[in-house]
Amino acid sequence: MGPLNDLKVLDLTRVLAGPFCTMTLADMGAEVIKIERPGTGDDSRAFGPHQNGESAYFMSINRGKKSLTLDLKSEKGREIFLKLVKEADILVENFKPGVMKKLGFDYESLTKINPRLIYCASSGFGQTGPYSSRPAYDLIIQGMGGLMSITGPDSATPTKVGSSIADIFAGVFSAIGILGALHNRDKTGKGQMVDVAMLDCMVAILENAVARYTTTNQNPVPIGNRHPSIAPFTSVRTSDGFINVACGNDLLWHKFCEVIERPELAKDERYTSNADRCNHMDELIPVLNDTLSENTTSFWLEKLEKAHVPAGPINKIGEVLNDPQVIARNMLVELMHPVAGKVHVPGTPIKFSETNSEIVAPAPVLGEHNEEILSKIGYSPAEIADLNQQGIV
Amino acid sequence: MGPLNDLKVLDLTRVLAGPFCTMTLADMGAEVIKIERPGTGDDSRAFGPHQNGESAYFMSINRGKKSLTLDLKSEKGREIFLKLVKEADILVENFKPGVMKKLGFDYESLTKINPRLIYCASSGFGQTGPYSSRPAYDLIIQGMGGLMSITGPDSATPTKVGSSIADIFAGVFSAIGILGALHNRDKTGKGQMVDVAMLDCMVAILENAVARYTTTNQNPVPIGNRHPSIAPFTSVRTSDGFINVACGNDLLWHKFCEVIERPELAKDERYTSNADRCNHMDELIPVLNDTLSENTTSFWLEKLEKAHVPAGPINKIGEVLNDPQVIARNMLVELMHPVAGKVHVPGTPIKFSETNSEIVAPAPVLGEHNEEILSKIGYSPAEIADLNQQGIV
Repeated sequence: MGPLNDLKVLDLTRVLAGPFCTMTLADMGAEVIKIERPGTGDDSRAFGPHQNGESAYFMSINRGKKSLTLDLKSEKGREIFLKLVKEADILVENFKPGVMKKLGFDYESLTKINPRLIYCASSGFGQTGPYSSRPAYDLIIQGMGGLMSITGPDSATPTKVGSSIADIFAGVFSAIGILGALHNRDKTGKGQMVDVAMLDCMVAILENAVARYTTTNQNPVPIGNRHPSIAPFTSVRTSDGFINVACGNDLLWHKFCEVIERPELAKDERYTSNADRCNHMDELIPVLNDTLSENTTSFWLEKLEKAHVPAGPINKIGEVLNDPQVIARNMLVELMHPVAGKVHVPGTPIKFSETNSEIVAPAPVLGEHNEEILSKIGYSPAEIADLNQQGIV
Repeated sequence: MGPLNDLKVLDLTRVLAGPFCTMTLADMGAEVIKIERPGTGDDSRAFGPHQNGESAYFMSINRGKKSLTLDLKSEKGREIFLKLVKEADILVENFKPGVMKKLGFDYESLTKINPRLIYCASSGFGQTGPYSSRPAYDLIIQGMGGLMSITGPDSATPTKVGSSIADIFAGVFSAIGILGALHNRDKTGKGQMVDVAMLDCMVAILENAVARYTTTNQNPVPIGNRHPSIAPFTSVRTSDGFINVACGNDLLWHKFCEVIERPELAKDERYTSNADRCNHMDELIPVLNDTLSENTTSFWLEKLEKAHVPAGPINKIGEVLNDPQVIARNMLVELMHPVAGKVHVPGTPIKFSETNSEIVAPAPVLGEHNEEILSKIGYSPAEIADLNQQGIV
């Protein structure tokens, strides 16, 4: 049983940022009731690739949740929703700011019905500020938030991160905010609103770029896979790809030169200290590329590991998922989905010693838990059939 | 007062992953006591650039914490540490697995002294598995974890994300785990251990790449700033840089063609449906680059905004920090540091309605809170002076 197994989450989220947040809560044992539009459900149910008609994308970030279809604009739908709000601990939504207010379901309204409710709104720009009502997409936010301006092979090529990390960071910071508010509620009995913006999250994770800019007034630029102030700490070409090497100090640099059988580099005065190597990286990298291109990544990895020089491959996704460490950590989980069949989803990276955090259920098919959820709040089979026929659920 | 204002955190972390976790807890009001090596402290105190001798990097991720210097290998240092453990709610460390056990401070030992303790270990590969004892660096983990294999301008150029997001994700997932365990403790009175690995976190955030691989057995590759299945949803060249445009549907595509005064593109049968546009992106992108290169990013942004076509700039760090939305959300905070003077740090992306989450204190200078912390647990000024002279604090 996960640590949140006493909690009920109403999940009004779609696509990625919000669903990633509620996935994290579900992985820790919370009961997550995903409320979806009757007929089509979460937009991401349409995202390919599909397996027996079920979206692999949807299934990966909605594992362990329950699905209730509900037309929030119909009177009966609203009635059902408000009954669920009364019993909920947490509500998460990632609509554009204003949408929930229009529905009459903003925090101010819902807290009157349930003052214990923790209400988390995850959005592109946040509930306040001049851009608040703008639509947001991960690409746009990665660009506006500065991360693209420091990612890429060179300063002329600003590059998007290959996964939608503006969405994902909004999801995880939302989870942190919810759990912080939960601790406060465990003390006071009072819920509150948590407001998380994708753009804010991007600023929060710029790391040394902010310190560098505010101290020096220089805009950092993309520098490929190099480290700004340690060398060699970068990717080097091999005969079949690349290898990452991390020579954090002079001793490791000397060991590295031995392993690659270029002892003269360790003695070269251009490469004596870390500062020297940083200053001459443009000369050093081609030399290393030439040398390591004489053999394969796995050849060099084995030699460097023996010499205790930190190094690693640039794994493709298939290699990651078959890596012995990833398997040992249970980071790829097999689930049996009633329609899609056997599916694989990433595991949870939070490992508890006492309260299990194991993914046990697949993602729901659309409306899979309508009966279960509605009957629990007092609807009879006949009433449920009626709601169904009217298209309310 | 933040929601965690009743909690005491013992912080044994260094550099980034652990400090980012405890920063999040400090931002939410927890009292974070950072235990540092006497003399030098956290390695990151040496990371440039410096301001009046204080590291801008260190100051940004250690704001709001207290610093206690302590030699954990000395007998008296250990005695002090164990006194602090007795009173602590949470302990966070990011040593290589095994280091805390060697010190006698592993979870099994500390839980005997304080069964309420929540002990979070953040490491490169986790406390278990074949690579557990290996050292980890962000670059190595981004490579091994697959993110580099899907980031970059083209499939020949796997690229590291410009900020150390393997570290940062380990920090935020650690915070989630700690807060999950905290809720469980609020119910049961029992603490537990939380084990978070940077590599696991990378697998957890690969997003659609895992679904795509497990469904199709094809390894995703870097595709620059394009979207894998929507077009045009990418960066386009302008006369002074780039602009990100996100035409999520046919209507937006038509509007976009109007704005850029290329209505014939909307009628071109190669670009009729989204699938058509995806299939002909290699032809379409140069056309868009040529057209938008005729004017500046800000010229196009203004026109596209008027037409409600989602678009955005690729902001440099200075532009991000001066953006009206970023300022409105208080995402750049000015603090007065006793030595460095005025410093700026990123704000917290978690905005609470009731319990403030404001950054109020700068990062500590090394050992700044020795007296305060030691006197609270019963040491007299004379004893503290003695500990100081012996180099224990």
